Amino acid sequence: MPADARKRARHRLSIARGHLESIVKMLEKEDVYCVDVLRQIKAVQGALSGASDVVLRGHLEAHVATAAERGDTVEIVEELMEALRYRS
Amino acid sequence: MPADARKRARHRLSIARGHLESIVKMLEKEDVYCVDVLRQIKAVQGALSGASDVVLRGHLEAHVATAAERGDTVEIVEELMEALRYRS
Amino acid sequence: MPADARKRARHRLSIARGHLESIVKMLEKEDVYCVDVLRQIKAVQGALSGASDVVLRGHLEAHVATAAERGDTVEIVEELMEALRYRS
Amino acid sequence: MPADARKRARHRLSIARGHLESIVKMLEKEDVYCVDVLRQIKAVQGALSGASDVVLRGHLEAHVATAAERGDTVEIVEELMEALRYRS
Repeated sequence: MPADARKRARHRLSIARGHLESIVKMLEKEDVYCVDVLRQIKAVQGALSGASDVVLRGHLEAHVATAAERGDTVEIVEELMEALRYRS
Repeated sequence: MPADARKRARHRLSIARGHLESIVKMLEKEDVYCVDVLRQIKAVQGALSGASDVVLRGHLEAHVATAAERGDTVEIVEELMEALRYRS
Repeated sequence: MPADARKRARHRLSIARGHLESIVKMLEKEDVYCVDVLRQIKAVQGALSGASDVVLRGHLEAHVATAAERGDTVEIVEELMEALRYRS
Repeated sequence: MPADARKRARHRLSIARGHLESIVKMLEKEDVYCVDVLRQIKAVQGALSGASDVVLRGHLEAHVATAAERGDTVEIVEELMEALRYRS
């Protein structure tokens, strides 16, 4: 993975982990309200999608765009299509 | 939030947090492969969707199903529709 | 289904059908560009999500919010959770 | 777009259009049940995702994998990332 993408993805995922930590704490309180938790989980899912986009862009640029030069287009595309299935 | 839903959602999110922790660690290695990271992020997103479903079911049963009895159907439904928008 | 939701959902889905028709036509042309088609399909998916939200809101207000009064909360919630799974 | 992908995408979208037609008809009946409509819309969304995958695969193989040879990697990847955003 390109170094820049690796660094940025790690940064985003570290923030998402902290956010997830706070939701786990929220759920320790008996009076926590369901919809507040739904919103917070959705925010973490959005952060994960953002990190996923960083990784995907790095992969497209570094590995997919160079596939024809290497001669492994079919394998690289098959691998990516499988990873993108049910992408949220 | 119903106690059972709270407990199960917390359990699922704790597991997702540990999984996210492992992805952050993966990204410390220079030779990490993009598609492996994409797959792992997707797995965490699936776990978050599962936790979200637990919370949603608890909310539907405890708060939405009783709205007509309380007389706040429009507010409760509006609040839930907003939270469900862009649900991954 | 509440009459208003039925009417609005039908209107939205009729528009989506026309849009889908135009994409099928686009694909008759040999020089059609992939990304243009991807964008158009995504626009139809957005329209379907919009129609789905209209139906969901009507269902929450008319059937889910009144479940406790009828005494069929568990069945109604189970049915809805199943329909919402993999909601795009 | 590769001829094969174009043909298969058109076939899938024609089926989805027919399915959408049937949902519009369903909604003409006063006693149509919300959850049945939700399920049918979701099925059409699944069909659209399938067609979208066919187009995406064709694009990755024909245009993205050859980008480095042409020298337009950044533009092609940016274009695709934009089209994939909010991909359901």
